[in-house]
This record gives sequence, C-alpha cells and structure tokens, in this order.
Amino acid sequence: MISVVLLGAGNVATHLFKGFDKTSEVSVIQWYNRSIHAIKPYANSVDITDDLNDLKDADIYILAVSDDVISEVSKNLPFDDKLVVHTSGSVSVYDLDMKHKRGVLYPLQSFSKSAEMDFANVPICIETIDKKSYPLLKKIAVSLGSPTKRINSDQRRVLHLAAVFVNNFTNQLYRIGHEITESEGAEFDLLKPLILETAKKIQEMSPFKAQTGPAKRNDKKTIKKHLKQLENEQHKAIYELLTDSIKATHGRKKL
Amino acid sequence: MISVVLLGAGNVATHLFKGFDKTSEVSVIQWYNRSIHAIKPYANSVDITDDLNDLKDADIYILAVSDDVISEVSKNLPFDDKLVVHTSGSVSVYDLDMKHKRGVLYPLQSFSKSAEMDFANVPICIETIDKKSYPLLKKIAVSLGSPTKRINSDQRRVLHLAAVFVNNFTNQLYRIGHEITESEGAEFDLLKPLILETAKKIQEMSPFKAQTGPAKRNDKKTIKKHLKQLENEQHKAIYELLTDSIKATHGRKKL
Ligand SMILES: NC(=O)c1ccc[n+]([C@@H]2O[C@H](COP(=O)([O-])OP(=O)(O)OC[C@H]3O[C@@H](n4cnc5c(N)ncnc54)[C@H](OP(=O)(O)O)[C@@H]3O)[C@@H](O)[C@H]2O)c1
Ligand SMILES: NC(=O)c1ccc[n+]([C@@H]2O[C@H](COP(=O)([O-])OP(=O)(O)OC[C@H]3O[C@@H](n4cnc5c(N)ncnc54)[C@H](OP(=O)(O)O)[C@@H]3O)[C@@H](O)[C@H]2O)c1
Repeated sequence: MISVVLLGAGNVATHLFKGFDKTSEVSVIQWYNRSIHAIKPYANSVDITDDLNDLKDADIYILAVSDDVISEVSKNLPFDDKLVVHTSGSVSVYDLDMKHKRGVLYPLQSFSKSAEMDFANVPICIETIDKKSYPLLKKIAVSLGSPTKRINSDQRRVLHLAAVFVNNFTNQLYRIGHEITESEGAEFDLLKPLILETAKKIQEMSPFKAQTGPAKRNDKKTIKKHLKQLENEQHKAIYELLTDSIKATHGRKKL
Repeated sequence: MISVVLLGAGNVATHLFKGFDKTSEVSVIQWYNRSIHAIKPYANSVDITDDLNDLKDADIYILAVSDDVISEVSKNLPFDDKLVVHTSGSVSVYDLDMKHKRGVLYPLQSFSKSAEMDFANVPICIETIDKKSYPLLKKIAVSLGSPTKRINSDQRRVLHLAAVFVNNFTNQLYRIGHEITESEGAEFDLLKPLILETAKKIQEMSPFKAQTGPAKRNDKKTIKKHLKQLENEQHKAIYELLTDSIKATHGRKKL
C-alpha cells in the first residue's frame, strides 16, 4: 500500500482525494490544508491537519497548492529526502526545495471542485529528477485509472501552453459564438451539437484533416460577407487572424 | 407520406438520403445529381436521374447543391409554384428562383460523406417566405429525429458565422496545439481528453462561466512566459488577441 499525504484542498486536491479513496493500492493517510475548514467535512474518513509540523511519515507528499506557493510550502516541510511532487503544468520541478526527492504529477485536464471527474479522462504527465522515483509515481497515477506519460520539463511546458489554446482560447471562441448569435436573438444552444462534434472529430482524425469552411476553401466571397457582418472590432480581428492561420496551415495566401 | 425529390449527392444530400430512408413519414421518390455515377449505387432503392427535365412531381424539392449553383439549379427546374428549399447557412432564400415557393432547411452541423451522423445531433433551422410552407418543413425535419428551430434570415446568417468560430476556428486552435506540442516531441493525444471536456462543459454551463486560465485570472507572469515560449509570430499574435478578448469579456484591461 502506498501512503500519501495530500496538501491543498482546491480543485485538484479534492479530486485526487476522491480518486485515491476508490483505489486499493494507494491510501491517503493525512490531508493538510492551510485553512482547516475546507477539509473538515472529510475528518471522519481521513486524518486532517492545518499544521505542517504535524505531518506524518509517508511514501509521497503531493502538493496540490497554488502555483505561487509551491516553492514556499515545499521549503516549510519539516523533513527532507522524501518524495515531494507538485501538480502544476507551468511550475518548474526545481521550484521544489532541493532537500526533497522531487517530481511532478501534472493532470492534463480542467478541474473544478463541483464537477465530477473520471480519471480515465485525465492523462497524468509524470516528471522526475531522479529516475528511481518514477515507478512509484507511475503506480499512483495508474491506480487512479489515468493514462500516464513520462515527460520532460520542456514537454510539460508546451503541453501547458497548448492546453491554453485548446481549452481557454477555444472556450473564448464559444463565448464569441454566444455573443454573435445573441446579437440577433438566435439561440446559442443550436451550436452545441456542432461544438461537441468538432471536439469528437479530432479524437480520431488530425485537426489538419478535419478542417473545412471558407478559410480552408479560400472562399473570398463568404469571408468578405462575414467580415462585413462582424460589428465588434476585436471579433473582426480574430476572424482575420484565424482565417490567415488556416490559410497558412493549408498553403493559401494571406487575407 | 411526404414525397421528396432530392437534388445533389454531396455530404449533405447523402446523409439526408440515408436519414429519410429510415423514416416512415417521408419518402424520397427520386434522387437527382448532375453526375449520375455518384448516385448509381443507390439505383436499386430509389429512382435516379441526371436530367432536370425528368423530375417527378413531389411535395418538396430539396436542393443540397453547392452554394454557388443554388440559384442556377432552382432556375432550371422545369416547373413552378412547388416548394423548393436549399440547405445552405449562407445563401439567401431569395436566391431561389421566385417562380417557386421558397424555403431553407439549414442543418447546423458539419457533415462529411464518410462519417456517420445521427440527426438527433443535427439541429435543423427552418426558414420560409410564406408561412404556409412551415408545417411541412417542420414535419420533414422532425421525421429525421432532428431538433428544429424556426429562424429568420438574419438569424441564419449569424448562426452560420458563429459556426465558423466554434467549428473552423476552434479546429485551427486544435491544430496550433498540435504544432506546439510536436515542436517538443510531446504527444498531441494527451490533449484530446481536455478538448472533449472543454466542449462537454459548455453543454451545461455558459462559456462565460466555464472560462478559466491565465487570461481570466490576469496572471501576467504566466502570460509573459507563454509569449516568450511561442516562436511562431502568428501563434503569438493569436495568443495576444485571444488573451485580450478574454480580458475584455471578463472586465480586465488589455494586454
Ligand atoms: N484546476 C485545474 O484545472 C488544474 C489542472 C492541472 C493542474 N493544476 C495545478 O494544481 C495546483 C492546484 O490547483 P487548484 O486549481 O486545485 O487550485 P485552487 O483550487 O485555487 O486551490 C489552491 C490551494 O492552495 C492552497 N494555498 C494557497 N496559498 C497557500 C499558502 N500560502 N500556503 C498553503 N496553502 C496555500 C489553498 O488553500 P486555502 O484553501 O487555505 O486557500 C488551496 O487549498 C496548481 O499548481 C495548478 O496549477 C490545476
Ligand atoms: N457539408 C456541410 O457540413 C454542410 C452543412 C450545412 C449546410 N451545408 C450546405 O449544403 C449544401 C451542400 O453542401 P455539401 O457539403 O453537401 O456539398 P458537396 O459535398 O460539395 O456537394 C455538392 C453537390 O452539388 C452538386 N453540384 C455542383 N455544381 C453543380 C451544378 N452546376 N449543377 C448541379 N449540381 C451541382 C455536386 O454535383 P457533382 O456530384 O456532380 O459534383 C454535388 O452533388 C451547400 O449549400 C452547403 O452550404 C453543408
């Protein structure tokens, strides 16, 4: 049985706790959070604390705390030479205090406390400094039912950056779709099946092959009509830039 | 039983044929295509023709042909005062020759001939010039199992434009994610569950509420790091513009 001390009680830590609770290979023996009230509801099923000096001995310490405080919290851990990992996509593994064996368990998914999450849909990217820590981290990720992938720092950095494009920026395109349709009293809901289909399509097909539409076809008449329709200057700029980007990808000239 | 003559044999017409084939309320009594070879495989189950002068008498004629030729094909139909509709998101209903009763059945989805399509996931937007044609068009759409919505020309125009944002432009963000990850030998596949989750999330929640990430948080440090990481100038411009757009939506100042 692998013993885990979990630190933090936000989106990620909460899902990790629930995930580990279902496995037989991993046991969360203690849960720490700066403010105890967030973990009070779990006091019956796990030892809770708000004092770093109270931390128990465990195989691994998972720091699922805000990016900005990872370094500080790792420094304040009152022991050394134990395996300590964080869960961030963008923080360096070297931000963890060097007194520890250091690693990263980066869950490549968007968590929110309130929404259910099946770890089968959460690829966990594993990074370690020393090779010896890898098998344990892999076991932990696999116990959750997650696909796992060993990566290096550069790869984690680009994955986090790419995640901003496919998650935050994509969501903003949905938002613009919402604004455009509402401006004429059309229902955004009508676009939802298309949005889902667009995401499903590239599960099997490359985004290159999946592309369609006026930019790919270089359909100047439709592009011109669309630009005329757009009243918001920012929306217009986004239309132009992404149309150019599609053209660049598919070997067409610029707008 | 509603009798339909289907014109065209591309992505949309092929799916419409297969969809109608499963209903008991609608019968495709004839299928026309300019080049007969595309519909030859269906000759056993439906009357096929490549001659507009051979068209049978039907309750409705559905023109699922390229946008550019809708006007011309409708003009060449050798009859008048029949219900004739097209399936385009961007072509005016008035592009259909005025000798007909005119309407539009716009299926708001991305079709490709090869991929299966369940019409339950295809909202059909209905537009008519005279009100009397509406009930028949509604019946036809419902027979396919599609959600339906009556819309006007302005609404169809914005829906088509919004579809470009949530389908073509979103797909290009996936493509950029692909390029960025590959540049470091990271696997694009790791992003696929996040892509699906992002699309699923807004089925229940508004894109406004669903937004997260550095732009929404106005996390200047991460934004700066990301911009430094991006080598492609176009990717950088897209990052800046969409970050500004998220800030505008969420009441933050520009980059
Ligand atoms: N959310 C996601 O979708 C996601 C996905 C992948 C990776 N991550 C990474 O996972 C980590 C946690 O993210 P999250 O979304 O779970 O964050 P979160 O919901 O904002 O929770 C942050 C946690 O950090 C704690 N914390 C903040 N300042 C602290 C301090 N000075 N000392 C001790 N604890 C402190 C908070 O404690 P209080 O409860 O006392 O405020 C809270 O438990 C981050 O590194 C993030 O980059 C997040
Ligand atoms: N594909 C989508 O995702 C989608 C979604 C919603 C709406 N629509 C709309 O549905 C309509 C059809 O789109 P599609 O994707 O099915 O097109 P498509 O696959 O390109 O097929 C075009 C069809 O038009 C015919 N055609 C072209 N020029 C013609 C001419 N001069 N005379 C007679 N027929 C001609 C073609 O005949 P040949 O076989 O002889 O070339 C072919 O059957 C368009 O108005 C489009 O905007 C498409």
